[in-house]
Amino acid sequence: MTSQFNKKNEAWSARFSEPVSDLVKRYTASVFFDNRMAAFDIQGSLAHAEMLQAQNIITAQDYADIQRGMAQIKSEIDSGKFEWLLDLEDVHLNIEKRLTELVGDAGKRLHTGRSRNDQVATDIRLYMRSAIDNILGLLQDFRLALLDLAEKNADTILPGFTHMQVAQPITFGHHILAYVEMFGRDTERMQDCRRRVNRLPLGAAALAGTTFPIDRERVARTLGFDEVCYNSLDAVSDRDFAIEFCAAAALVMTHISRMSEELVIWMSPRIGFIDIADRFCTGSSIMPQKKNPDVPELARGKTGRVNGHLIALLTLMKGQPLAYNKDNQEDKEPLFDTVDTVIDTLRIFADMAGGITVKPEAMRAAALQGYATATDLADYLVKKGLPFRDAHEAVALAVRTCVEKGCDLSDMSLEELRAFSSLINEDIFEVLTLEGSVAARNHIGGTAPQQVKLAIARLRNQLS
Amino acid sequence: MTSQFNKKNEAWSARFSEPVSDLVKRYTASVFFDNRMAAFDIQGSLAHAEMLQAQNIITAQDYADIQRGMAQIKSEIDSGKFEWLLDLEDVHLNIEKRLTELVGDAGKRLHTGRSRNDQVATDIRLYMRSAIDNILGLLQDFRLALLDLAEKNADTILPGFTHMQVAQPITFGHHILAYVEMFGRDTERMQDCRRRVNRLPLGAAALAGTTFPIDRERVARTLGFDEVCYNSLDAVSDRDFAIEFCAAAALVMTHISRMSEELVIWMSPRIGFIDIADRFCTGSSIMPQKKNPDVPELARGKTGRVNGHLIALLTLMKGQPLAYNKDNQEDKEPLFDTVDTVIDTLRIFADMAGGITVKPEAMRAAALQGYATATDLADYLVKKGLPFRDAHEAVALAVRTCVEKGCDLSDMSLEELRAFSSLINEDIFEVLTLEGSVAARNHIGGTAPQQVKLAIARLRNQLS
Amino acid sequence: MTSQFNKKNEAWSARFSEPVSDLVKRYTASVFFDNRMAAFDIQGSLAHAEMLQAQNIITAQDYADIQRGMAQIKSEIDSGKFEWLLDLEDVHLNIEKRLTELVGDAGKRLHTGRSRNDQVATDIRLYMRSAIDNILGLLQDFRLALLDLAEKNADTILPGFTHMQVAQPITFGHHILAYVEMFGRDTERMQDCRRRVNRLPLGAAALAGTTFPIDRERVARTLGFDEVCYNSLDAVSDRDFAIEFCAAAALVMTHISRMSEELVIWMSPRIGFIDIADRFCTGSSIMPQKKNPDVPELARGKTGRVNGHLIALLTLMKGQPLAYNKDNQEDKEPLFDTVDTVIDTLRIFADMAGGITVKPEAMRAAALQGYATATDLADYLVKKGLPFRDAHEAVALAVRTCVEKGCDLSDMSLEELRAFSSLINEDIFEVLTLEGSVAARNHIGGTAPQQVKLAIARLRNQLS
Amino acid sequence: MTSQFNKKNEAWSARFSEPVSDLVKRYTASVFFDNRMAAFDIQGSLAHAEMLQAQNIITAQDYADIQRGMAQIKSEIDSGKFEWLLDLEDVHLNIEKRLTELVGDAGKRLHTGRSRNDQVATDIRLYMRSAIDNILGLLQDFRLALLDLAEKNADTILPGFTHMQVAQPITFGHHILAYVEMFGRDTERMQDCRRRVNRLPLGAAALAGTTFPIDRERVARTLGFDEVCYNSLDAVSDRDFAIEFCAAAALVMTHISRMSEELVIWMSPRIGFIDIADRFCTGSSIMPQKKNPDVPELARGKTGRVNGHLIALLTLMKGQPLAYNKDNQEDKEPLFDTVDTVIDTLRIFADMAGGITVKPEAMRAAALQGYATATDLADYLVKKGLPFRDAHEAVALAVRTCVEKGCDLSDMSLEELRAFSSLINEDIFEVLTLEGSVAARNHIGGTAPQQVKLAIARLRNQLS
Repeated sequence: MTSQFNKKNEAWSARFSEPVSDLVKRYTASVFFDNRMAAFDIQGSLAHAEMLQAQNIITAQDYADIQRGMAQIKSEIDSGKFEWLLDLEDVHLNIEKRLTELVGDAGKRLHTGRSRNDQVATDIRLYMRSAIDNILGLLQDFRLALLDLAEKNADTILPGFTHMQVAQPITFGHHILAYVEMFGRDTERMQDCRRRVNRLPLGAAALAGTTFPIDRERVARTLGFDEVCYNSLDAVSDRDFAIEFCAAAALVMTHISRMSEELVIWMSPRIGFIDIADRFCTGSSIMPQKKNPDVPELARGKTGRVNGHLIALLTLMKGQPLAYNKDNQEDKEPLFDTVDTVIDTLRIFADMAGGITVKPEAMRAAALQGYATATDLADYLVKKGLPFRDAHEAVALAVRTCVEKGCDLSDMSLEELRAFSSLINEDIFEVLTLEGSVAARNHIGGTAPQQVKLAIARLRNQLS
Repeated sequence: MTSQFNKKNEAWSARFSEPVSDLVKRYTASVFFDNRMAAFDIQGSLAHAEMLQAQNIITAQDYADIQRGMAQIKSEIDSGKFEWLLDLEDVHLNIEKRLTELVGDAGKRLHTGRSRNDQVATDIRLYMRSAIDNILGLLQDFRLALLDLAEKNADTILPGFTHMQVAQPITFGHHILAYVEMFGRDTERMQDCRRRVNRLPLGAAALAGTTFPIDRERVARTLGFDEVCYNSLDAVSDRDFAIEFCAAAALVMTHISRMSEELVIWMSPRIGFIDIADRFCTGSSIMPQKKNPDVPELARGKTGRVNGHLIALLTLMKGQPLAYNKDNQEDKEPLFDTVDTVIDTLRIFADMAGGITVKPEAMRAAALQGYATATDLADYLVKKGLPFRDAHEAVALAVRTCVEKGCDLSDMSLEELRAFSSLINEDIFEVLTLEGSVAARNHIGGTAPQQVKLAIARLRNQLS
Repeated sequence: MTSQFNKKNEAWSARFSEPVSDLVKRYTASVFFDNRMAAFDIQGSLAHAEMLQAQNIITAQDYADIQRGMAQIKSEIDSGKFEWLLDLEDVHLNIEKRLTELVGDAGKRLHTGRSRNDQVATDIRLYMRSAIDNILGLLQDFRLALLDLAEKNADTILPGFTHMQVAQPITFGHHILAYVEMFGRDTERMQDCRRRVNRLPLGAAALAGTTFPIDRERVARTLGFDEVCYNSLDAVSDRDFAIEFCAAAALVMTHISRMSEELVIWMSPRIGFIDIADRFCTGSSIMPQKKNPDVPELARGKTGRVNGHLIALLTLMKGQPLAYNKDNQEDKEPLFDTVDTVIDTLRIFADMAGGITVKPEAMRAAALQGYATATDLADYLVKKGLPFRDAHEAVALAVRTCVEKGCDLSDMSLEELRAFSSLINEDIFEVLTLEGSVAARNHIGGTAPQQVKLAIARLRNQLS
Repeated sequence: MTSQFNKKNEAWSARFSEPVSDLVKRYTASVFFDNRMAAFDIQGSLAHAEMLQAQNIITAQDYADIQRGMAQIKSEIDSGKFEWLLDLEDVHLNIEKRLTELVGDAGKRLHTGRSRNDQVATDIRLYMRSAIDNILGLLQDFRLALLDLAEKNADTILPGFTHMQVAQPITFGHHILAYVEMFGRDTERMQDCRRRVNRLPLGAAALAGTTFPIDRERVARTLGFDEVCYNSLDAVSDRDFAIEFCAAAALVMTHISRMSEELVIWMSPRIGFIDIADRFCTGSSIMPQKKNPDVPELARGKTGRVNGHLIALLTLMKGQPLAYNKDNQEDKEPLFDTVDTVIDTLRIFADMAGGITVKPEAMRAAALQGYATATDLADYLVKKGLPFRDAHEAVALAVRTCVEKGCDLSDMSLEELRAFSSLINEDIFEVLTLEGSVAARNHIGGTAPQQVKLAIARLRNQLS
């Protein structure tokens, strides 16, 4: 949510002196947040005017006047000189009013054959397309940064956890690649969403189309849309793309929250697997020894914000009759804030990936605690002929003995091990090392360093 | 969400020139939205300083210096001259830094025995308490305005709908009183929430309390808190009150959405039960004949916003380990926006209630369509001795006949009616009038005008 | 949610006699709801066994035994004779245990090279793929039924509403096509989601892959998956597809809720645009005259259920560290209930579309009320040379005069109309008819009957 | 969600053979989940009948017949012999139909002066009241169990974390008391909710009240309601109490999720602060060494379910016009599942609290790592006269030196410490011990063992 409430920064109780009519004006106006779409509003208006002229609905002179006026308005906005007026409600009327001041009747002709209903739908789709393109670039940057981190740690062993219990040894490179996959799916979803964003509502007018001989395909081509929206009522009332985008964004943030949770845990002193560069952390106002992983914590918290915006939009559209209702003005703030949150977070995380220092000794020490190679022992027995479920039982007994003795599986003598199964031989000790364990998971998707390197190569190729 | 993203109003793509370190600073800072709590931060600090002095932890001179400095800071903020610095992260550090500039060492002593963790928790509770008190006042205003509307229409008959089908005649006053009940429960919930808000976290320090001999009850008394938070870890990590408030606010907005839905339907031309004063409506950019009920539509849409904020906060707190984590900084924007939304909406609705013009003829015409008095006929038969389920069947047959004839029950002759039950006599025609029907529901909670007037009296008494 | 709580139907207070250990068993078990995936569990196991045999990890005899055992289990399940045991926790162990009873050691070897973590992920993806295919078929059925309804009403005129106010005349066929577009986008989203569902997690084992020489591509081919999941940690922890599916389902239900809202309003007696066949409606227990549109109301309510499940899954995954955690068991009930809700609703709506009776007179009468052709008058003036904004003002004055006189625009004489603009001539009366108005919106996406028929042809072609 | 979908356990694709009319019947019926309210339906009917008789609306004989019939029905239900019929839609009609079979005309008279709309609202409130009373008892049990755990560990020192970084030493008893506070607020909220649940809707009939001379206060007294619902339209359409309950339940589960997160982390081998009794954990299908804290993980996951149900209900009620709509039938499954989830979870957690084994050595070792007493050093300096902010700086330097040397603050010599401030004397070493640190936070809400014991005494008193 952006600037609707700029004026609310003053202690809001002060607002009670505001007369209700001013409050109604502020309550129903959108200009202080929808002016973010100004550049797209102008872009859409110019494409509309170009078509009106090509179809002889306005004259060449009208079009030239509109171009000239819009150029000046754009420059006024860019330089911060444009005065946004609450009384003119929204970005559209503010710009159109100024245009008419600048170029007269041509300005009054611009709205021919359209309505604010299809105009705002066009603006927001142009904005969304641009936002998605930015996010796609940032997802790429972030994935490349993670690939670098994975590559440096393709052989670094740490315990893989399930249920926060030590399960099996894995490599840190392999762990990081799990996130590269997640953000890869996010990329796919953003691309899919973009296809549905990139359709032109303009020409739907208020809800039924227009009586002017417009050429919607021409406008679509000018604006780079893949196709037109094929039904005018749907065109002005559809906000699916906003909801779909927020759902895709909620998954991006869910992945960010999972990585953040791990970063925070990994930086906790009893774990100590990593350190994060100082510029992503802060100290404490009272405890001088603290170094807090603020960025991942805050990012984890921002998941809530995006989930919330998704629900805001779903609630908004629930049960709305066709075609356009004022409710829809509420689509923008959740959308804008979702875009900002995702963009800021991805930029910071792409940078932060390079600021992670790995502590291999702490990782290794943790992997040696918790019988991480028990599965390897079971697999060993299966390969010697024992059915899997029987092997599982034999290993369970061995682990229980180790727990009692306070030692690891690899600390037992061959003789001790053979007490659990006579199938065990000298070759078991290679199997029970951390390196042996990870190297043995050598198939596509497995944690073996060789597979991690192959996966990195495949992904680099895909991303280039 | 308020001013965190003020700078984002410029086309956000421009932000990409921003270096990451600046982005991190902006990402983690809260000053541009938490400065809304400045007055409460000062209030809390003064109460803390007063106690420090009373406990001889700081000197009387220190306290006097702090009072003097804070008075100046308050005046700087009120007059808009205070410079909020991103580099100082949040409202607390901005004010403390300025205080130290103004009064030297006394300023550095203010933070003795507290931490930002308990400080921010105190500020936000002071803010919430004030917000709730405002909302309670607005709920009262709104309910009184609805009572006026109900009183004027205690006898105005319209069809009561279930499933949007005509069910039984009711009075418009009775219908409006349903909303007075809803907003009455909202009042209760806000009061209940206020009790849990009004507890003092200060003294919890970072998470464990402090080694200074503080007097928390004294601070609680000074600030008007009912009691202290009894556990320091809970005190700094608790955000229940924010979630509870948003849940209560979501119900306020749910009621607003239901009333808005009805206002919009009632103003639709085929229904035409009411008109809403022009200042709550707008025209169309393309259809000059339109008068759109913008305010209720927008309010209905804003339900989504508040539901979303509730989910944002629940997501935020899910699975957070104790005690304070940076995630919690994300509590403020959803909360502030919820407060703004509820306050603005209630103020407008309280005023709009007086701007509703009722059209009794349209209501009456609708009540006469749809066999609204069929239940009265059934009840009549029951009173003559027929079991309810049998009476129900007899009336169903009568209605079916009316549908075929295209007439109302009251249009049939006594003879025709007696075809369905010989229990029917001349006195039936009184029963089948709209007035007879509503007057007969004459028990507590019923729609009889007499009951409506009693209910209004009861509520006026309660609200005075 | 399905059968986890079967036993809870008895007054739940009775449950307090249950010892805690039984409660823990029931709390953590999933067999009473995940047994819905039994067929997919068997399918996945058979593909796994086939590969184990091809890779010489198990013998041909083992594989034959497993096939034989699974065939019998399938038949036991289909005939309802299979006994699901709470003590065996989940569908996987129930089936594996029975397999071992039936075929001995071969059964114990089946689990070689896999884990329940990748097994359940595979089962649920097989289930989801099948569910999506069913939904795609139902969306097609429903869209075809809507096309039939639209085709029959390509020329039927009703008022198009914005803000529930009469805006411009449209055709009912055009209105219905708006929904065909919506459910078309739903189809696209389900297809996109299917691509991400259709990837094979099997081979990820517990989290790191396995030490057996497995062939994951072979299993993928056998099961008809497009590709394998490329990272083992991601494979076992990923639930994106469930969230993405629920988000797509939430949009399906949002569209259903919008259509339902319209159906309910259209069936309300003051509107009376349609009637819905009796089998989708019910009567009242107290008001014999009522015919309630139960199905659309209930469907509208079920939107909440699906939005809720989406939030349940997003909350579930928020902040979960890798790789598998028991939390994930909670993914199934929301998913299953979402699938059931969407499938039931679409089936009923596809049928109900054919049970809608249109009442053209009521629609026409409504279109004649509310100055629906005012825009046409404005467009007429623009075509005569007046700038749009000036034309808009002239029409506004004309409408105001009509409102005062209580007549429609088309009821005024030429002379009266010319008082608002001397550009108005005799040809205006054609423009002000409903038929003239809709026919004039004759461009792609417009409401002209000709365009509606073209759109239907385009869609029929796409759907065949 | 409970048993609506019992029949769906069969592979759902099989359902496609079901004719649509059966599907409609199943889609709109509620009997397979609302029969859980049977006992409350009977209780409500008996109170209604008692009043009807007292008001001479039915005869004493009718009442006696109804009592006799209901007694038999209750016994049939309790013994599982009652046959619930889909064709009779819901619990109300099933029972009423059976009553009429058993006692004839008296059964047909039972529905006099009421409707299913007020009947179901009454049933669900009776159910909710009973559920809340159960939950209040379980919250009490759980808090008492936590008090026992806290009492045993009032002196057990562990590091207090903020940002998952070691902050200051605290006691485990103090930490556990934070949860006692949280569940205490949950208790308050459930009590507040109960007040709003405990109001009688019966007498509202369909929506407008009834023409019979009913005595609502009498029924309220019979059923133990605090008061009647004062407006009939509101009485049948209000579902606030369900939403308020789910919001309160979402907070219960949020607290459970936070405790669960901590339990899971504490049981992770590198932390190792606690062990959880075996009956709340499970092993692994592939890793024999694992002991997974299944119950806390699953409970953490169930937070999503309850948040989802809250959103389901809020979405359900958004924008619903008065009075009753079929949408409302969707209120029950989310509510029932929320009740089940909270009740099961609290019962298990109350028991699990006694199954937690604390490992004081691991806690102490962790507290000694991370400069947990740095704040104590700063406070020491402040007490010697240094302003807080200056003391903070001095300690920061000391900590940095320790980090470089790889030692703790208490490992430095007096001389070394005095390098940072000449105010430091021999008495510092007492301050830097863990015991000294916790004992010094000796004010209400602080972590000092003395305060923990006082808090326990206060809470025991409150809970008895």
